[in-house]
Amino acid sequence: MNPAKPSTGTAAAAISGVVVERDPARMRAAVLAAQRGGRRVGFVPTMGALHAGHGSLVAQALARCDDVVASVFVNPSQFGPTEDFSRYPRPFAADCALLASQGVRWVFAPETESLYPAGHATAVVVTGPAEPFEGMLRPGHFSGVATVVCRLFLAVPADVALFGAKDWQQTLVVRRMVRDLGLPIEIEVCPTVRESDGLALSSRNAYLSPADRQRAVALHESLCQAAALWGAGQDVTAIEAAMRHILEQRGVSIDYAAVVDRDTLATQIPPGSPAVALVAGRLGTTRLIDNQELPPRPRPPG
Amino acid sequence: MNPAKPSTGTAAAAISGVVVERDPARMRAAVLAAQRGGRRVGFVPTMGALHAGHGSLVAQALARCDDVVASVFVNPSQFGPTEDFSRYPRPFAADCALLASQGVRWVFAPETESLYPAGHATAVVVTGPAEPFEGMLRPGHFSGVATVVCRLFLAVPADVALFGAKDWQQTLVVRRMVRDLGLPIEIEVCPTVRESDGLALSSRNAYLSPADRQRAVALHESLCQAAALWGAGQDVTAIEAAMRHILEQRGVSIDYAAVVDRDTLATQIPPGSPAVALVAGRLGTTRLIDNQELPPRPRPPG
Repeated sequence: MNPAKPSTGTAAAAISGVVVERDPARMRAAVLAAQRGGRRVGFVPTMGALHAGHGSLVAQALARCDDVVASVFVNPSQFGPTEDFSRYPRPFAADCALLASQGVRWVFAPETESLYPAGHATAVVVTGPAEPFEGMLRPGHFSGVATVVCRLFLAVPADVALFGAKDWQQTLVVRRMVRDLGLPIEIEVCPTVRESDGLALSSRNAYLSPADRQRAVALHESLCQAAALWGAGQDVTAIEAAMRHILEQRGVSIDYAAVVDRDTLATQIPPGSPAVALVAGRLGTTRLIDNQELPPRPRPPG
Repeated sequence: MNPAKPSTGTAAAAISGVVVERDPARMRAAVLAAQRGGRRVGFVPTMGALHAGHGSLVAQALARCDDVVASVFVNPSQFGPTEDFSRYPRPFAADCALLASQGVRWVFAPETESLYPAGHATAVVVTGPAEPFEGMLRPGHFSGVATVVCRLFLAVPADVALFGAKDWQQTLVVRRMVRDLGLPIEIEVCPTVRESDGLALSSRNAYLSPADRQRAVALHESLCQAAALWGAGQDVTAIEAAMRHILEQRGVSIDYAAVVDRDTLATQIPPGSPAVALVAGRLGTTRLIDNQELPPRPRPPG
């Protein structure tokens, strides 16, 4: 574990051997001080309710950096009015214990009022990759994500921030925002961590009934089928039909099942370009998403 | 004049004794290096076509800081489709000479493509103080301002940025964005510089015909009248009517003439709060704005 020396501020407290910082300005000062001392700082933004997917991000951050900050903040602005903000799990002490055991130096856990001060009136709005799929189905979601990620990157001016590939569209939105605003941080996207049957880890899996948990594997199955058919040269329409068939057979209410350009999410995939299969569906009241990168296919001969 | 040592990058060039930096990443690195050396850096963002108002901002920056950066960038995203982007004056060599003579260390003059890279899809959108007045009359204007100022503040991570009070609503929008996103920069608003007859300096004054130039003093006259009536305890409706009367007599096409809360721009001004008189009007094809702060009035007795 990296040395976690307590901040001098009163709002920072050592819980389970990790320093919990609630104040954005002090958090920023601590990161800058570490960097001035020659330390490379990695940042793993989370909404808490940590699982092995977050653990993998933290491990990769620790492998690449001297100090790691993880944020735990359930961001209200990325939830729609009918979504699960209020019931989203918040096991903060367990999260801190896990992060401490991994060797995280700081947990940044701001109060909502410190990220959204009284009279807050600023949003970061991304179009382009934020428009289709989740952008259509969850109006305002990516604006909420971009706004809080921008705010977090200013409070935690790390060298690199790590995101999981499971939220593929989110990674494109964050990369776009970072590039467009010139935020001085590197973005690293890490592979999705899965259960033994292939279900992508998600804090929302805890909502699933045992029966729905079993059926949830259909998302991964549909993506495996997409990868197989993509590799066999099938066209996108046929692949998407096969994905839908698998999901319907397992009783998943499909939001989308699509194969699109990996970087732009455009439905036209130029020959020789990588693609991504995206899937989102509902089981009972739980909504799950997943995806699978698809390597470039050889251009047709001639 | 502060020592202006040339950047090592090929895009930086010394023109008239000032270092012109076109690359945002190198600009950022230069400012951070100065700060690491213990120097306080001030930033004056401009669209060029400099006049004594900008000169005053630069002088105040130099008085408060060790090094000063001025940016010269005519930001396309803050102009509406029917506005004066293409004809906006761009006397870049003269601007650089003026800034050099004042002792500015760097002129940041990015290419449009480096602030708005291919596929640009991110906007910073402010509501609240950005909504009335200019926000109603120039849809998208303040989003363009907030987006470019955020981008500029990331390329020029100065300790303090200076803005002129002439664009009062803009100063409120910038302050709101800085606070909401947690941008680590101090905002200083400096008094409007005026011609001898009271006309606020503006790059757009150059568009005025000699006759319109004479009539343009009506904006300042209406504000002086507002201040007098405010001080005499007149109510807002009467003050606004008096302002309109002066503007109409001089043939100014009024966009607005209003007395509102200084900090929120709300029409309800709480007793004992400062106010601001705002005016915008057109003379021929030239649109001018101006304003006057109004000190808190004593609360009514009892």
